[in-house]
Amino acid sequence: MKKIPVGILGATGMVGQNYIALLAGHPWFEVAYVAASPRSAGKKYGDAIAGRWALPKPCQPSLAELVIADASDVPRAVAAASRGELTFVFSALEMGKEEIVALEERYAAAGIPVVSNASANRWTDDVPMLIAEVNPDHADVIPLQRKARGWDKGFIAVKPNCSIQSYMTPVWALLQAGYEIRRMIVTTMQAVSGAGYPGVPSLDIIDNVVPYIGGEEEKSEKEPLKILGTVENGKIRSAEAPLISAHCNRVPVINGHTVTVSMEFGGKKPSVEQVERIWSEFRALPQELKLPMAPEYPIIVHSEANRPQPNKDRDVCKGMAVSVGRVRSCHVFDLRFVGLSHNTVRGAAGGGILNAELLKSKGYLA
Amino acid sequence: MKKIPVGILGATGMVGQNYIALLAGHPWFEVAYVAASPRSAGKKYGDAIAGRWALPKPCQPSLAELVIADASDVPRAVAAASRGELTFVFSALEMGKEEIVALEERYAAAGIPVVSNASANRWTDDVPMLIAEVNPDHADVIPLQRKARGWDKGFIAVKPNCSIQSYMTPVWALLQAGYEIRRMIVTTMQAVSGAGYPGVPSLDIIDNVVPYIGGEEEKSEKEPLKILGTVENGKIRSAEAPLISAHCNRVPVINGHTVTVSMEFGGKKPSVEQVERIWSEFRALPQELKLPMAPEYPIIVHSEANRPQPNKDRDVCKGMAVSVGRVRSCHVFDLRFVGLSHNTVRGAAGGGILNAELLKSKGYLA
Amino acid sequence: MKKIPVGILGATGMVGQNYIALLAGHPWFEVAYVAASPRSAGKKYGDAIAGRWALPKPCQPSLAELVIADASDVPRAVAAASRGELTFVFSALEMGKEEIVALEERYAAAGIPVVSNASANRWTDDVPMLIAEVNPDHADVIPLQRKARGWDKGFIAVKPNCSIQSYMTPVWALLQAGYEIRRMIVTTMQAVSGAGYPGVPSLDIIDNVVPYIGGEEEKSEKEPLKILGTVENGKIRSAEAPLISAHCNRVPVINGHTVTVSMEFGGKKPSVEQVERIWSEFRALPQELKLPMAPEYPIIVHSEANRPQPNKDRDVCKGMAVSVGRVRSCHVFDLRFVGLSHNTVRGAAGGGILNAELLKSKGYLA
Amino acid sequence: MKKIPVGILGATGMVGQNYIALLAGHPWFEVAYVAASPRSAGKKYGDAIAGRWALPKPCQPSLAELVIADASDVPRAVAAASRGELTFVFSALEMGKEEIVALEERYAAAGIPVVSNASANRWTDDVPMLIAEVNPDHADVIPLQRKARGWDKGFIAVKPNCSIQSYMTPVWALLQAGYEIRRMIVTTMQAVSGAGYPGVPSLDIIDNVVPYIGGEEEKSEKEPLKILGTVENGKIRSAEAPLISAHCNRVPVINGHTVTVSMEFGGKKPSVEQVERIWSEFRALPQELKLPMAPEYPIIVHSEANRPQPNKDRDVCKGMAVSVGRVRSCHVFDLRFVGLSHNTVRGAAGGGILNAELLKSKGYLA
Repeated sequence: MKKIPVGILGATGMVGQNYIALLAGHPWFEVAYVAASPRSAGKKYGDAIAGRWALPKPCQPSLAELVIADASDVPRAVAAASRGELTFVFSALEMGKEEIVALEERYAAAGIPVVSNASANRWTDDVPMLIAEVNPDHADVIPLQRKARGWDKGFIAVKPNCSIQSYMTPVWALLQAGYEIRRMIVTTMQAVSGAGYPGVPSLDIIDNVVPYIGGEEEKSEKEPLKILGTVENGKIRSAEAPLISAHCNRVPVINGHTVTVSMEFGGKKPSVEQVERIWSEFRALPQELKLPMAPEYPIIVHSEANRPQPNKDRDVCKGMAVSVGRVRSCHVFDLRFVGLSHNTVRGAAGGGILNAELLKSKGYLA
Repeated sequence: MKKIPVGILGATGMVGQNYIALLAGHPWFEVAYVAASPRSAGKKYGDAIAGRWALPKPCQPSLAELVIADASDVPRAVAAASRGELTFVFSALEMGKEEIVALEERYAAAGIPVVSNASANRWTDDVPMLIAEVNPDHADVIPLQRKARGWDKGFIAVKPNCSIQSYMTPVWALLQAGYEIRRMIVTTMQAVSGAGYPGVPSLDIIDNVVPYIGGEEEKSEKEPLKILGTVENGKIRSAEAPLISAHCNRVPVINGHTVTVSMEFGGKKPSVEQVERIWSEFRALPQELKLPMAPEYPIIVHSEANRPQPNKDRDVCKGMAVSVGRVRSCHVFDLRFVGLSHNTVRGAAGGGILNAELLKSKGYLA
Repeated sequence: MKKIPVGILGATGMVGQNYIALLAGHPWFEVAYVAASPRSAGKKYGDAIAGRWALPKPCQPSLAELVIADASDVPRAVAAASRGELTFVFSALEMGKEEIVALEERYAAAGIPVVSNASANRWTDDVPMLIAEVNPDHADVIPLQRKARGWDKGFIAVKPNCSIQSYMTPVWALLQAGYEIRRMIVTTMQAVSGAGYPGVPSLDIIDNVVPYIGGEEEKSEKEPLKILGTVENGKIRSAEAPLISAHCNRVPVINGHTVTVSMEFGGKKPSVEQVERIWSEFRALPQELKLPMAPEYPIIVHSEANRPQPNKDRDVCKGMAVSVGRVRSCHVFDLRFVGLSHNTVRGAAGGGILNAELLKSKGYLA
Repeated sequence: MKKIPVGILGATGMVGQNYIALLAGHPWFEVAYVAASPRSAGKKYGDAIAGRWALPKPCQPSLAELVIADASDVPRAVAAASRGELTFVFSALEMGKEEIVALEERYAAAGIPVVSNASANRWTDDVPMLIAEVNPDHADVIPLQRKARGWDKGFIAVKPNCSIQSYMTPVWALLQAGYEIRRMIVTTMQAVSGAGYPGVPSLDIIDNVVPYIGGEEEKSEKEPLKILGTVENGKIRSAEAPLISAHCNRVPVINGHTVTVSMEFGGKKPSVEQVERIWSEFRALPQELKLPMAPEYPIIVHSEANRPQPNKDRDVCKGMAVSVGRVRSCHVFDLRFVGLSHNTVRGAAGGGILNAELLKSKGYLA
């Protein structure tokens, strides 16, 4: 099977680098097009990232030779697509919100689907914000999006913020099992890689905690509601529950966002054992379809009292599983637990790739 | 004024060392007696701590010459007291709970007051668990304790766990201002020094978070209720609110426990501005009495979005103030904030010294 | 091909756990016997390490069921060997030096070869101290060792300390290329995992450097001389050069020892380019034999000014390569460079496994 | 005594902030003028640093009200000086080298002495590079500098790089005692605060070592020679020994540069005991003059094997002493030791203030 040629917009940034690293050896996709800011355009990818490559595994030599396109040069991408050298793009753009919305729309309008990691289009109401295990059906707003925009093959799909990944799949598994979650209070302890590169200065985080991340609490509270929403009249209408309150903190951890969660149920309340069973047994469409990036176990339940821990558990199932532990009752709400997910894999490039696999399976990346 | 000679039980441990360091130059007290396990007994203090002194400021040379007593040798302490060389002891004992209870009682019965940092006697119902700004009146259970036990000059008073210090004074200030707090959900991010020495292995905490500290959540939930309790029939009866749920985590920070707090009020709800004003203006008995260890400002309110931070704010007011910030409304409960206190100063030796100052002022350490 | 059943002495410790982890899926060897202290003996391996497993990848479930033997119960190992269930043991014993020497000799005398990670037998003059790429010929002292001791199939072979791995292969490559190194001054910056578990307290290393590791400087200075020595009369006679002076430091890094090296040459002096070429092209017996654990490239030469770095480069070639960089001239000596190796892989269990593969290839583990 | 009004050029940067913090309560000097880039000019100092203040102790409220001048607006400084509101400036400018040279010269030419922390003028041959305990006599090049430049009251004096402070005073003490040091090999382990703010990204230094700091090795090797040089014909001529080779590394430490040093002596060689005695007893002009910022003991000798350590020893003597330890013989050279100094105090603002105190005592800041 010939691999599908994909592009990466924002290929030199932290998330772009993660796409490059995670797509190495991917069975369906191969990176054939890299685009970045005008400053990098025209350089070989290897030269552009020299001294800025932030990952343990080196960049594949073949990609180092790719010449970087200007991300704003949509006609160039269209030309590549017409030669069969580009089917869709992953967007890891780092620009102002309006610029990203406009640029992602130009790609989509030109027939090039955009699977985006950026937050810019998350609240566009006909753009699905996908966690492949949770709301794969939201992908089906794409035909309506195309129709409304007058787009033919192009579309825009996004993934949510990294901070919610540690609790969103567990929450969904409980909802799907018939339990109603009314309210949640969550406190995140987030890794520095979530801030990109150079990101958090070391002077601010060695021997320290920063109890604030701009915009993160709002995302952590609101994005779950769109993901749990319903498609109505070609748009996604957000759910009204669970009501979430988030405290977001930065801690001296390189990768892996940890979260403490307290949940209040409406109606019947599951026992600790029921919750652990529901999570252990949870499988969803990506597992059914055996998508290449899908974790075999979407939720790993730990029984030791002191797990999950970012340093020890973030890499489980290629960094794509959510680890949970310390499921226990709560005197204030009903149940508490600790969640963990790898923010630059599950929460960023890995989640984006899984979304693309889902979209391919559903026929939207034909 | 001649200084009051004090002893330290458990003088070689981490908390004992902090007592030594913080009492250097104290205007009322001077360390005259150091006691530890039989293993250290008979050695000079300086020799016993060589290579184990864990603090930046070196031990005062005069104390290095003190010969360590066996902490279980109460008669020796009594003899020192009869010579006017010992008035009371700070207990920083590290032993099993029953052993500490028995040993602290033996000192008290022998006429030597015990101001304890240990958790062993925290739930003894005629033992006051004091935060000097919050429940100084609980000290008045001492005459009843003495009478019930048949003790003359001796008594036992304790301080609560370090994990609650970051929210307990703020909570008290609001209660005192007439606001009822019904429920709280707190998540702590605690420093490694809270685990003593050697304590947390570096392999477990560099680039990591450990979402569990044995026994800490129970202490964080229950101890506030005793502190807010009332003296009835010579015993302290715990309050019934606020109901607290705690998630306790260890983070790669040396000193300073950070906590995120969500509060639900009963009755009238204060605004953010009201809360900030109440906290900024809060003063209590230690400030009124100008106790030497009392912070000038018990609660420091930060207005910058990203404060307080342990590395930058833990040392304010000699490490004795609680820093708070990010006071803001909450969609799930009513109000949220971030608290911070220095766990080995305010939360341990410094808090113990302030308690002793309070007890001295009230005439119990005559 | 049936796999060779191997045992691990000290299987529950940090190095023992690393052997377990690295031997998962090994093409030649399979763990069939685990032994530890009497405290763990009789327990299932999974139970013994519960809460003490210090590695990211979980222990293979099949090994969790193995019942731990008492490491001092040599007859039990002999019985296993007679049933074909044990061919040789990896020693990761953590005991006093004399006890380890005695116990390793008892295994060897009983016909069970010992491939040891312990330092106890490193200076026994008929015991080879092997780095597979440097002195594989020292293995040939084994027949003489057996003869002198009256042992039949058993023998003892050891590996050197983790601190020398970052410069020993580079040094050897230059010596082999005909350059004489007279003197070296090295400063190590060593990871906390080198101290085992619990090892370095976090209070001693967060935001800190500890400029001392007991015994480490002596090992770093002397062990290279034995490795470069010659076999004479059935014993290994140490070389007399290079003279090495070592400063050993502990830094807040989890894995990976970094070292700065200054070298003075005798006779002709290589240029920077020559050195880089010699290192890049260096291959040795393990590469020739394509031993499973051998790194494809024993020495990786970095050209970026700020590499190698432990966090980014320690895992290259499965953690078995030495990374070097910053090769440059020196006004005081002749040449300087920075070296890096993964201390718990190349410097401990991985190096031991490679040694066993070498010994197997040479026919000593028949 | 009326305090001398001083200015700070580059007052909003990291070093500038340290000047502000260290001058709080200074008995001779008071900050009366703050200047920074045009971006900050016109703002109140408190507003300009809001959210960028990087130090534990808050900025003095009185300084928060100072309006920032444009650092390039020399006439404004001259006007302040003419009103008696400015006597001299500390330069903590962060600009290109040529710009700093030009600007510092404009201040000096206008009659305002410049005590600089910047590296720009370190190699100007009539500018003294001062460590107050080592080469206070180099200050006497100032009259010659003034004469050559045609300056009246103004002059430029600088301090050396932070990386050399941990070994320069110890080296000087030995030279002064009559021992000739021919060659030295040093390896530094430098704190992240040395890179300023934002400086080192946390992604590059958590769980990591970066074995390179641009330009730092050259400074560490060359600057000592100027400091040890002699004044000849109105210029400072560098010494020719000791020859120094430096390896400079960044480690995950907030403050405090640690260095390992190997020294080769010419002529007679001191014993370990002699070296420790020389260092313990070393006092110099700043101690004699009892300058306010001078450490009581310029060199603190540690006897414990594992000291000095940055976290525990950097703050000794207000951060102005150099701590040394592990003095021991060396097989390759003659003697080895570990040095430590606080890079943002002794190595930056504190050293600058001590230099100003020295220059005041010598009458150059009349």
